[in-house]
Amino acid sequence: MAHQSQLAGFIIDCKTDDLDAATSFWSQALGLDPETPQDPEESAYRYLETGPEEVHIEVQKVDHPSRVHLDIETDDIDAEVARLEALGAKRIDDIKRWVVMEAPTGQRFCVVKPVRANFVQTANHWD
Amino acid sequence: MAHQSQLAGFIIDCKTDDLDAATSFWSQALGLDPETPQDPEESAYRYLETGPEEVHIEVQKVDHPSRVHLDIETDDIDAEVARLEALGAKRIDDIKRWVVMEAPTGQRFCVVKPVRANFVQTANHWD
Repeated sequence: MAHQSQLAGFIIDCKTDDLDAATSFWSQALGLDPETPQDPEESAYRYLETGPEEVHIEVQKVDHPSRVHLDIETDDIDAEVARLEALGAKRIDDIKRWVVMEAPTGQRFCVVKPVRANFVQTANHWD
Repeated sequence: MAHQSQLAGFIIDCKTDDLDAATSFWSQALGLDPETPQDPEESAYRYLETGPEEVHIEVQKVDHPSRVHLDIETDDIDAEVARLEALGAKRIDDIKRWVVMEAPTGQRFCVVKPVRANFVQTANHWD
């Protein structure tokens, strides 16, 4: 069955004890307003406001070294992970609602549920 | 004098001897068409086509470990670097037409000339 996917956005992973200070830097550096998620499960995240149809930018508190990673959004995580594995990516970890993968070139990225408002209209269709 | 800046885009830095293979993976993973720059000085880059007003996505061949970094575009690199230094970032290196900086949270990023078509209309104004 066909599924869809597209680039969801970029997460600025910060190894820090002070997520608000990290968010303050990135918010001012990029000139994007910060927003604190309502969902308590999202307490390690701060959103930086882009348009609802644009790529999302988030700041995340992490324990691993600081980096930037990208998310791919999809309406069928299993099918998307299989498609990416066929392209040469490796499944690294299953975390609650998403899957961590590693590209052939070494970058970690995540496969997540749809987040952009234009997902149905603009995401790629894969057979 | 006031200057402007905004998020320019994200560069997928790949430590690889085969930039075309890396580009092929990321192009298919994200469903974005690849494009080879015309400028010979840009031979280490491949563009992944997004809209001209959207954040740019590029794949770059690098010698350091693979990662993802972001670019900030500005009409006054010196003024923007000074603004970012005041926020706590450090100037790391001057490379031809851009400046490499490091965030307080450790990520490297670049300050570059305007690349998005909507720069004048949507970039932040800083006094």
